[in-house]
Amino acid sequence: MIDIEYLKNRRTKLANLIDVPTVLWSGKSPSKNFRANHYPFRASSHFLYFAGLPLENAAIKLDNGNLDLFMDNPHPDSSLWHGEMPRREDIALQIGADNAYPMEVLKEQINEVATIPVQDVFTYTKQREILQRSLSINKELNQVDEQLIKAVISLRLTHDKIGLEEIKKAINVSVEAHKIGINSTKKSKTEAEVRAAMESYIISQNMTCAYNSIVTVNGEVLHNETYNNQLKSGDLLLADVGAETPLGWASDITRTWPVSGHFSSSQRDIYDIVLAAHDACIEGIKPGVEYRDIHLLGAKIIAEGLVNLGILKGDLEHLVDKDAHAIFFPHGLGHLLGLDVHDMEDLGDLAGYEEGRTRSERFGLGYLRLDRPLKGGMVVTIEPGFYQVPAILNNPKFQQKYQNDVNWEKLKQFSDVRGIRIEDDILVTETGAEILTKNLPTKAIDIEEMMS
Amino acid sequence: MIDIEYLKNRRTKLANLIDVPTVLWSGKSPSKNFRANHYPFRASSHFLYFAGLPLENAAIKLDNGNLDLFMDNPHPDSSLWHGEMPRREDIALQIGADNAYPMEVLKEQINEVATIPVQDVFTYTKQREILQRSLSINKELNQVDEQLIKAVISLRLTHDKIGLEEIKKAINVSVEAHKIGINSTKKSKTEAEVRAAMESYIISQNMTCAYNSIVTVNGEVLHNETYNNQLKSGDLLLADVGAETPLGWASDITRTWPVSGHFSSSQRDIYDIVLAAHDACIEGIKPGVEYRDIHLLGAKIIAEGLVNLGILKGDLEHLVDKDAHAIFFPHGLGHLLGLDVHDMEDLGDLAGYEEGRTRSERFGLGYLRLDRPLKGGMVVTIEPGFYQVPAILNNPKFQQKYQNDVNWEKLKQFSDVRGIRIEDDILVTETGAEILTKNLPTKAIDIEEMMS
Repeated sequence: MIDIEYLKNRRTKLANLIDVPTVLWSGKSPSKNFRANHYPFRASSHFLYFAGLPLENAAIKLDNGNLDLFMDNPHPDSSLWHGEMPRREDIALQIGADNAYPMEVLKEQINEVATIPVQDVFTYTKQREILQRSLSINKELNQVDEQLIKAVISLRLTHDKIGLEEIKKAINVSVEAHKIGINSTKKSKTEAEVRAAMESYIISQNMTCAYNSIVTVNGEVLHNETYNNQLKSGDLLLADVGAETPLGWASDITRTWPVSGHFSSSQRDIYDIVLAAHDACIEGIKPGVEYRDIHLLGAKIIAEGLVNLGILKGDLEHLVDKDAHAIFFPHGLGHLLGLDVHDMEDLGDLAGYEEGRTRSERFGLGYLRLDRPLKGGMVVTIEPGFYQVPAILNNPKFQQKYQNDVNWEKLKQFSDVRGIRIEDDILVTETGAEILTKNLPTKAIDIEEMMS
Repeated sequence: MIDIEYLKNRRTKLANLIDVPTVLWSGKSPSKNFRANHYPFRASSHFLYFAGLPLENAAIKLDNGNLDLFMDNPHPDSSLWHGEMPRREDIALQIGADNAYPMEVLKEQINEVATIPVQDVFTYTKQREILQRSLSINKELNQVDEQLIKAVISLRLTHDKIGLEEIKKAINVSVEAHKIGINSTKKSKTEAEVRAAMESYIISQNMTCAYNSIVTVNGEVLHNETYNNQLKSGDLLLADVGAETPLGWASDITRTWPVSGHFSSSQRDIYDIVLAAHDACIEGIKPGVEYRDIHLLGAKIIAEGLVNLGILKGDLEHLVDKDAHAIFFPHGLGHLLGLDVHDMEDLGDLAGYEEGRTRSERFGLGYLRLDRPLKGGMVVTIEPGFYQVPAILNNPKFQQKYQNDVNWEKLKQFSDVRGIRIEDDILVTETGAEILTKNLPTKAIDIEEMMS
């Protein structure tokens, strides 16, 4: 199931980039109600990248291309509850480990090693105990950890063949889930029913959701995680749903479609602007191009469309420079995709931002998650949107700043457009871009046809 | 949505049982990949019982029947990502709080308070920091905490009207999910597809799963959480799936049905034994009866059935006394049900076991989760089963001990029965028992009819 050669290749590449040994922990599933009722286990992505399998309560030591596995065998009683589980030696063979030891041996082998803090707080505490030093991404980053993190970023920024295959598997399932969501909407009464139809397909394929799904008629709430609303004819439904493979690789897709099966003319007008931005941004992707420039290209096309509709007014360059588009498109164009849906966001902006760059103070750029020149082998999302966010539109500060840039009266004609986003996953190739999510239609007319 | 009078009643009852103030934390959602990609939030059940709403990062102080709420208002920027969230004062009104303060005020108000440790490790660490003392259920239980825990157990052991209404809501959804699972099996090819059909209904009703579903043809793996197997005609499919309401109340149902729609005669023979035990145990439930005796009644009926089939041999009393039934029914008959699927299992055995009692060393009793006299208002599960667990049947120790009690040759005729469990949720009434899950058939013939 695992291609050991690719794993070994990753380990060798790491060894070429860092000269201290590395120890990575996998973490353990957090308790929900009590220890036996836990959340589903999700291994640390850095661990997964080099170990290949989601082993709970395990650690690996990477040194000069070799991998030593540290994990305890299942408790003798556990076979009653969990069946016969593979033993350490079997797993070592599966993942191409050079040595395998019980967990308690790890502390004897730790002496000046680099690591990355895990998300699971229980394991993070153990990690600090065993290393006897502080661990932090944001401040006082330890020097060897920094060296490791830079090396890991340089590897994980672009994907090898098995990584890409996994992402494609996740994408194929997500594409199907979105088709099912679109097809099931007319017979659904609530957001929850459409969400159920979509996630059901993901579950049926033995995958999980890469993130908490957004399925909402209130698309203007960017990270909406409630599903209580009734669907009403005239609503747009925004669905941001993506599958994750059993080995941990993510996909991330958003579509927005009309509950009735037909976009109103105001919805269609805005939809086509978002789509034009989406298409132009993808068209602009190739190695060497700055992602930030692609973001600004999207911003410009949205601003241009809104000027044409009469929602924004004035000089286009001037509008984009003062972030007038960001009233309606306040987030960044997209992010890295890989083992995490925002790949390596556990490292703060270290992965998303080229060394030496930091977040902009600008309203229209501050939420940008990716600011690097693109490279062949990267997978990024392109997800422009249009939203009428009450917290922005009703904010006196914004109202004043953009008083003369927005035709507030005209805007009222578009009150049935609360939120639209169109998001695809794009592989940067050696010469341009490949839309990995291309089997899911984006055009309004194609979506209407699917629903008819 | 929340019935404040019932919440206040719970707070008053607590005040009658404990004379020190209590502080309970709700916890926060653990990170999965990175902070923004977190597990769905699940509030601490003790917090939920008195506060009524699943508030993240909140605490309540209960003192003399009053409730003070401690939580911070949403960050100003959060309305962009999460929409307008209710503010502290609104929430205080909703849950009938007497006062509401920002979180930072809490530490000024903590002086000799009782508490219960939360599951979320991040909050648990904060809890210990702010209280400046150790917190543990298993050892060195602090005296005021012990007083609180005993008081909370005595309240939560039996359910008030709103608690019971919530449990029934969860049960109704689970019953429907099981019907869908049974109906969808013949057209499903994998365990994952049946799981998807069942969980899909739970999601569509805006509920979550109270625990990780078990949907498996390997029913002999008691806590199986993989769904990779193909369904084959001749397999039995065991599904242990239960919904949880948005306010946190659980349900817990298991059914076992034939993939083909028809039990083989060997499967039917064993199924009817498990069902006979199930029915007799429920019949035996009334206030004052020891749950342990109900468990032993179930054990006896299973042993008797297996003797009649020729799988066990010898004197019935003798077989049960030496735990011969436990070769095939190794777990306990059931557990408390409430806000947790194993209600209050975060308190170890303090809730499940009557004061002064501890787990038995006996093979047939050691896994019993509940050992108390039953009381009107309790909800318990009754879930006898029959399993051919390789870890037991192939264990030389057991083989030797039960050499002459099992007809090993005869057993081979039942090789198509890997695991059967039938689980219902039972309310102990003032005079007997009410099967809350009665809308889901248990009889083999009724299940076959549903599938035909």
